[in-house]
Amino acid sequence: MTVSPPRSLTAIVLAAGKGTRMRSDLPKVLHKVAGRSMLGHVLAAVQAAGATRVGVVAEPGRADVAAEIERQAPGAGVFPQVERLGTAHAVLAARALLSEAADDVIVAFGDTPLVTPETFTRLRAPLAAGAGIAVLAFETQSPTGYGRVLTEGERVLAIREEKDATEAERRVRLCNAGLMALSGVHALALLERIGNDNAAGEYYLPDAVSLAVADGLAVAVVPVDEEEAQGVNDRVQLAAAEAVIQGRLRRVALLGGATLTAPETVFFSHDTALGRDVTVEPHVVFGPGVRIADGCTVRAYCHLTEVTLETAVKIGPFVRMRGGAVLESGAEIGNFVELKNARMGPGAKAAHLTYLGDAEIGAKANIGAGTITCNYDGVFKHRTTIGAGAFIGSNSALVAPVTVGANATVGAGSVITTDVPDGALAVARGRQIVKAGWAVRMRAQLLALKERRKGG
Amino acid sequence: MTVSPPRSLTAIVLAAGKGTRMRSDLPKVLHKVAGRSMLGHVLAAVQAAGATRVGVVAEPGRADVAAEIERQAPGAGVFPQVERLGTAHAVLAARALLSEAADDVIVAFGDTPLVTPETFTRLRAPLAAGAGIAVLAFETQSPTGYGRVLTEGERVLAIREEKDATEAERRVRLCNAGLMALSGVHALALLERIGNDNAAGEYYLPDAVSLAVADGLAVAVVPVDEEEAQGVNDRVQLAAAEAVIQGRLRRVALLGGATLTAPETVFFSHDTALGRDVTVEPHVVFGPGVRIADGCTVRAYCHLTEVTLETAVKIGPFVRMRGGAVLESGAEIGNFVELKNARMGPGAKAAHLTYLGDAEIGAKANIGAGTITCNYDGVFKHRTTIGAGAFIGSNSALVAPVTVGANATVGAGSVITTDVPDGALAVARGRQIVKAGWAVRMRAQLLALKERRKGG
Amino acid sequence: MTVSPPRSLTAIVLAAGKGTRMRSDLPKVLHKVAGRSMLGHVLAAVQAAGATRVGVVAEPGRADVAAEIERQAPGAGVFPQVERLGTAHAVLAARALLSEAADDVIVAFGDTPLVTPETFTRLRAPLAAGAGIAVLAFETQSPTGYGRVLTEGERVLAIREEKDATEAERRVRLCNAGLMALSGVHALALLERIGNDNAAGEYYLPDAVSLAVADGLAVAVVPVDEEEAQGVNDRVQLAAAEAVIQGRLRRVALLGGATLTAPETVFFSHDTALGRDVTVEPHVVFGPGVRIADGCTVRAYCHLTEVTLETAVKIGPFVRMRGGAVLESGAEIGNFVELKNARMGPGAKAAHLTYLGDAEIGAKANIGAGTITCNYDGVFKHRTTIGAGAFIGSNSALVAPVTVGANATVGAGSVITTDVPDGALAVARGRQIVKAGWAVRMRAQLLALKERRKGG
Repeated sequence: MTVSPPRSLTAIVLAAGKGTRMRSDLPKVLHKVAGRSMLGHVLAAVQAAGATRVGVVAEPGRADVAAEIERQAPGAGVFPQVERLGTAHAVLAARALLSEAADDVIVAFGDTPLVTPETFTRLRAPLAAGAGIAVLAFETQSPTGYGRVLTEGERVLAIREEKDATEAERRVRLCNAGLMALSGVHALALLERIGNDNAAGEYYLPDAVSLAVADGLAVAVVPVDEEEAQGVNDRVQLAAAEAVIQGRLRRVALLGGATLTAPETVFFSHDTALGRDVTVEPHVVFGPGVRIADGCTVRAYCHLTEVTLETAVKIGPFVRMRGGAVLESGAEIGNFVELKNARMGPGAKAAHLTYLGDAEIGAKANIGAGTITCNYDGVFKHRTTIGAGAFIGSNSALVAPVTVGANATVGAGSVITTDVPDGALAVARGRQIVKAGWAVRMRAQLLALKERRKGG
Repeated sequence: MTVSPPRSLTAIVLAAGKGTRMRSDLPKVLHKVAGRSMLGHVLAAVQAAGATRVGVVAEPGRADVAAEIERQAPGAGVFPQVERLGTAHAVLAARALLSEAADDVIVAFGDTPLVTPETFTRLRAPLAAGAGIAVLAFETQSPTGYGRVLTEGERVLAIREEKDATEAERRVRLCNAGLMALSGVHALALLERIGNDNAAGEYYLPDAVSLAVADGLAVAVVPVDEEEAQGVNDRVQLAAAEAVIQGRLRRVALLGGATLTAPETVFFSHDTALGRDVTVEPHVVFGPGVRIADGCTVRAYCHLTEVTLETAVKIGPFVRMRGGAVLESGAEIGNFVELKNARMGPGAKAAHLTYLGDAEIGAKANIGAGTITCNYDGVFKHRTTIGAGAFIGSNSALVAPVTVGANATVGAGSVITTDVPDGALAVARGRQIVKAGWAVRMRAQLLALKERRKGG
Repeated sequence: MTVSPPRSLTAIVLAAGKGTRMRSDLPKVLHKVAGRSMLGHVLAAVQAAGATRVGVVAEPGRADVAAEIERQAPGAGVFPQVERLGTAHAVLAARALLSEAADDVIVAFGDTPLVTPETFTRLRAPLAAGAGIAVLAFETQSPTGYGRVLTEGERVLAIREEKDATEAERRVRLCNAGLMALSGVHALALLERIGNDNAAGEYYLPDAVSLAVADGLAVAVVPVDEEEAQGVNDRVQLAAAEAVIQGRLRRVALLGGATLTAPETVFFSHDTALGRDVTVEPHVVFGPGVRIADGCTVRAYCHLTEVTLETAVKIGPFVRMRGGAVLESGAEIGNFVELKNARMGPGAKAAHLTYLGDAEIGAKANIGAGTITCNYDGVFKHRTTIGAGAFIGSNSALVAPVTVGANATVGAGSVITTDVPDGALAVARGRQIVKAGWAVRMRAQLLALKERRKGG
């Protein structure tokens, strides 16, 4: 028995849509779901499905789109769509890529971010079995507006646009999702034969189906959930897509062994990684780049972006971490604490009302309530280093660059401007003065003044 | 072709219900949805539908209800309902208003806050076409408890209370929503003829229908969604009404070009105004009086009341703004920052753990972490002024009234009690003293003490 | 007419399940819903239904499970399940308890936390009427996987495991919920006769039904909602159970006279007690031990555990309270304020950015923004006492143990280390020094340095 070499996969992603209904200055495909652009989701999915050659048909001259393509699919071709003459015409903008496609070609859309790699793999499967085209289709209760997929048994006969459909055809509930796989051998020739002899004068990609059928090529239909096939045309639909992806991410986290007390109030990024026996209370937001190891607790109201929590860390409630913040094993931070580009060693604690930016905190150090690293002088950022076992008294300001040594103590309310040696005490604050009776007299004066003002 | 003068609209709002099931000291109609009382919603809707003469039938002697009426419909009549003898009797409390109603009269209810101006307009439309009465009605799967609207074609024959209905009539699913439009010519006469010959001995407004039919007047039925017609009798229903209104407000924001990552976690007030390309992260609460211009970002966990954000402002996460706070174009405030009755100029920043109250901050000023305006002396509030380009070091307290000049710097940890000239440095803090080895010795002593206590 | 003495109730709770699909180091039954372990919910429910003798069959050697049993049902028997040979075998681990059961026996499961006391009471009711067994059963659209309850009229004939069911039997939608009540007279004998002659070689509790039927004992079926009967096998199901319990708790709070603007964003503990006319804004989390009296307002983003709010208290937004914190009547705390083991007297206020730990605050005291009680010296915790009417200036640190007298004032930015007498002013801060032009020169130098670095 011989093993065939794997078939190559070329993906063409149409991403030039105007997106007028988004009412946005940002191109539609750059709007984000789960912390990544819709285009990024599509590019990730086609690559995960095996596409090694990727082309994106994009609005000309958008540096932001080009940058996103390079970030999500380095080396992908970017093909400007100069005129808007229909989907078939758009695909042909990537003619250079198409003409070299040996095996399978997939046409995807930058505004359908929910299609999974598994679905792309299912979509291309009929090509290996000899089909000329495979179309992705979904059953729906509300087919109005969609092209209907007309079939005879497992064979597709045509895709009929609604306005051209007979009454009987309109009753068909199998609808064209838009995505298509084409045999690389036939793709370019089929696409070039598509005409624009229709009401809108547009070149429609689905017309490839009837041309293929006329040529005697097999056309397969591949089913997909209606939900997965949904595209995004306005921000109501964008929010709906976000909800679907969040549902998937929550399910993965739960089944992986994380407790989410209220999953519906926790928002993940596409790349959030939660360990086993992680507990997440309600109302938590994960931005991109978060990794949380086993046994951590994330209390309510935490907002995390670019963060690493090592094992058995406890944070929150009301914590903001960002910019590469790292908590090592057993470290804890509490309410109204922010960490930015800061690392806390094992067992270190900062329980309340603290800002640690550009800082390195040693193991088991204790950072008192109200501690602030003064890391910015108006022009430069500077680093603060706090040694292992150090104790920073409450309401202290550490003016960076500065080092507090291991096991040193900073007295409450101090402004530390020069380094503190290991094991030393540093205090920088005024002496307490008491004026007997002053407060009572002053209050009486203020109240008298208030009375006079009322009187006047 | 002649143009008829527009028909005048009189609205009578019944708002005297006891609301026992609310279990509240507050009158039912003053409970709020989307930051406005239910009564306020109804008054706004009838006025938006064109009512120029408005009367509210209210529980006698409630200054809070009277004040709300004056706020939401200045000049509206307030008619005390002294006895509780049924809805028809209640409407007649506004007899003075009714007797002057020339054209259309609408009867609305202070506890059905979801009815839109468009629905009120639809409800009165049949009157212009000659109907004597129009009743608002909804189809439901669960009609039990509602009065049924008995029709023949488009004509209403009667409204049958459930307890009086035959078995066949009970199967009718078209239910009386309660709201009614009456021809001003007939309204008073019809209402005065309604009797109380029924089990409860009450004068029922729906009985106007059979009287009108008997008089040969046309009675029209105007359909409405079941959801829109719902009244509020307990706090479960209050929460349900809130959810409906939130859904509407979210949809308007989304379609207008705002991104709400998780619309279901964002709560608007009835008057929240969001611009285009505004991004709102999850878990945000908008109190009344918020206006957000184009291109702003509101990160998670912001709580805003009486706030203006000009273009391209970024706030949050964890921000509280209130009392007329204003951020001018490009200003930014970050986590654990509160602004109250404060204005920040273009490009000014306050990134962390700061309270700015009764303050004016100049353009591009930088407010360090932990800055606090001490605006209250126990009796009076005072203002703080910070000049453009000023730099306030972290953990500073500014004791108002005080001015920090343009481009001035305040050293970290200072307590500023007198004005700082433009371009100057002000520092007010203790000198740093270091005691070598102190921290290690002290800790050893404390631990020894702990041991002794355990031993003892 | 004679009154029978009440029948005694013995409850046996099976709680030894491995819970592999939880993917957790914690035993399944210790996972929490609404702030209490699933096992705790079941133990509370059977006791509320009248069980005075309780036994738990548990995994051997789990001190955490034993401790939870003792906490939730003091004196309950703990019976180790050494081998896993099926549910009937598991029940027999509690043989000692069973053999003494005079009247009613209930078998419950530690992983079905939603079953209410009312349901347990309904389940045992047929025993008093002479039944030998009563089985709890639910109707479902998706019976696949459940044992079917085969009935003839009101009599149960058998419970048929799905794999043994005929095609007709599989169409039965009445499913065994697992819970069972048995007559104490017959229970032990029936259970001991259950064999393991089946595919898995297990002793199945439902087999008691056919044995009872064969003995001529009546077997009753007691219906239950499908939702209430659901067990928890993974964390998706744990989250689903949490959602059901939260729905119940929210409903109780609403009908009791609390306004929850957005109930779906408020999370209660099983023991949260809210008074009348309490308002809770969105996004609030109640941990265990919270009691809130009439007329309180809890603004958005509050996180409360072991907290008492007396009448007409206002807190939030962004408040964290814990450790036995108490606010007396009319006290208020505002944004970014934490109270831990602290009490504030009537009318006292702390409006912003404050940490009060191990503290006693007198009536009408005013705690300025940024105040911090320094309650920890690295080894011991100490108390802070603030007298009635005292005024603590902003950004002050109070180094405990310390007392600020009644009507005393602490100047802004002070570090208070010794007691302040009643009515006195205490100030402890540096004198303000101003250096003219310094800020402008320094900034110019920094910017020049930045330029040079860029150049280099």
